[in-house]
Amino acid sequence: MSILVVGSVAIDDIETPFGRADNVLGGSAVYIAVASSYFTTPVRLVGVVGGDYPPQAIEFLNERGIDLEGLEVIKEGRTFRWSGRYHYDLNNRDTLSLNLNVFEKFDPKIPESYRKTRYICLGNIDPVLQRRVLEQVERPRLVVGDTMNFWIETKRDELLKTMSLFDAFILNDSEARLLSGEPNLLKAARRIREMGAKTLIIKKGEHGALLFHEDQIFSAPAYPLEDIFDPTGAGDTFAAGFTAWLAKTDDLSHENVKRAVIYGSTMASFCVEKVSVDGLRDLSYLKIQDRFREFKELSRFDE
Amino acid sequence: MSILVVGSVAIDDIETPFGRADNVLGGSAVYIAVASSYFTTPVRLVGVVGGDYPPQAIEFLNERGIDLEGLEVIKEGRTFRWSGRYHYDLNNRDTLSLNLNVFEKFDPKIPESYRKTRYICLGNIDPVLQRRVLEQVERPRLVVGDTMNFWIETKRDELLKTMSLFDAFILNDSEARLLSGEPNLLKAARRIREMGAKTLIIKKGEHGALLFHEDQIFSAPAYPLEDIFDPTGAGDTFAAGFTAWLAKTDDLSHENVKRAVIYGSTMASFCVEKVSVDGLRDLSYLKIQDRFREFKELSRFDE
Repeated sequence: MSILVVGSVAIDDIETPFGRADNVLGGSAVYIAVASSYFTTPVRLVGVVGGDYPPQAIEFLNERGIDLEGLEVIKEGRTFRWSGRYHYDLNNRDTLSLNLNVFEKFDPKIPESYRKTRYICLGNIDPVLQRRVLEQVERPRLVVGDTMNFWIETKRDELLKTMSLFDAFILNDSEARLLSGEPNLLKAARRIREMGAKTLIIKKGEHGALLFHEDQIFSAPAYPLEDIFDPTGAGDTFAAGFTAWLAKTDDLSHENVKRAVIYGSTMASFCVEKVSVDGLRDLSYLKIQDRFREFKELSRFDE
Repeated sequence: MSILVVGSVAIDDIETPFGRADNVLGGSAVYIAVASSYFTTPVRLVGVVGGDYPPQAIEFLNERGIDLEGLEVIKEGRTFRWSGRYHYDLNNRDTLSLNLNVFEKFDPKIPESYRKTRYICLGNIDPVLQRRVLEQVERPRLVVGDTMNFWIETKRDELLKTMSLFDAFILNDSEARLLSGEPNLLKAARRIREMGAKTLIIKKGEHGALLFHEDQIFSAPAYPLEDIFDPTGAGDTFAAGFTAWLAKTDDLSHENVKRAVIYGSTMASFCVEKVSVDGLRDLSYLKIQDRFREFKELSRFDE
């Protein structure tokens, strides 16, 4: 099934305890689209870049088979740039500089050919823009939405309005606590669903993820990684693996939604093993399947 | 199979955000013995109390079928008393008062009839005393040892010496980081095993537990609890469920050790639902099995 990805397209400078990488591919739409491209086709991207966006980046996205009709290029503008530094424990990062550039006035325009896309994955952009995307598409089968603490803090009401339009809402543990005001994650989840979220996924980093779907809870393990090289894009690739597995299989049963959470975790685990999108460059569906099975082995027990 | 439990026997005063309970049963040996009594027989307890230890407590332990030959009663002394307060998030507690009383000079004496016990569960007492227990028993099949940050900080060398005598060593995530000096739990586990631990279990509270056994890692989920009434004894009952399941089945295969971790988590989940040992009073093996199956449902997914 088709998948539509909307989010930021950026050029990043990343510093980690292991080194630094300048002018590398970044942005939620890029991470999501590249990760999704291993599952299904077509993957349709909507985003905006400036005239400075590197031709090699376009070439890479083309090689991954990503449909770029929705990638607006503003020749006279500059691409969104983010520069950040991760600390020793990799759980916190400082934004060293942020230049929205052409992204500041991003107004997602969904090309005619994209409007019947069945599966939609919305990166963590302004909830008002997420809603604008949904106004332009025709009854998709599944809408998955991501967010971040910035929108919870600055556009709470808009986020709540948008959240109720998502079929699945993804956020991390600290965002869930922030949004709900509840320290206990189960209470937080209940509260957020009362606030309008349907299926809810709370990511817990090195502790895995919790899925709240229908009246069931599913606890997914984290892949055991001794070294996380670069956490950038982990959340985006999680959303990608989740959405793209469902798009590939077109099966929204509880059993398959659980699998989708594991595919999300799988893609995030590949992503953080290398800098920028490098962890997603030389993957194959076979490698992804192998790691999915490692997840299964990690948490399986019999009576 | 028989199980020998050595640890503290205490009277606790507990304050939680939900209320307070005074003069209630406490101590690692009591929690471990009571939880174990639902799995196997005989459960043999070694500990020390004063003349003030309530007859109803003895009666309760007798009702649970626990062999108290090893419970030393020092008539002219007073029982170990602990008073603590849990905060809102229940992850931290303040010790309000601590009177070791007869426990201060506790020197575990293993009765002749206990010496051939096959399974041994050592509560978090001084590692020197844990070793003294092991000197008095005849080749047990499995020794499980617990510890706490106090011993890591004050008796590190003794702990390392004792740890290498355990077949399975249980500690929580902050203790694992403290002992190893590694923030990453996988690195911490590797380091602790290099320091001499064999099978290692790292408990992560609301995030479940990790088992490092042979060359395998197993990730156990946490039971979803919206309200934890009283966390006292969670670690002890985890150790109990783990050891007692292995004692009951006498099977140390990897598959069965994984099950034992889930039985540990199961017993801890019952324990924290009520104050003191109340969560362990009206259990049955059937209820324990039902919750074990809930754990399975919580983390199960198929390819």
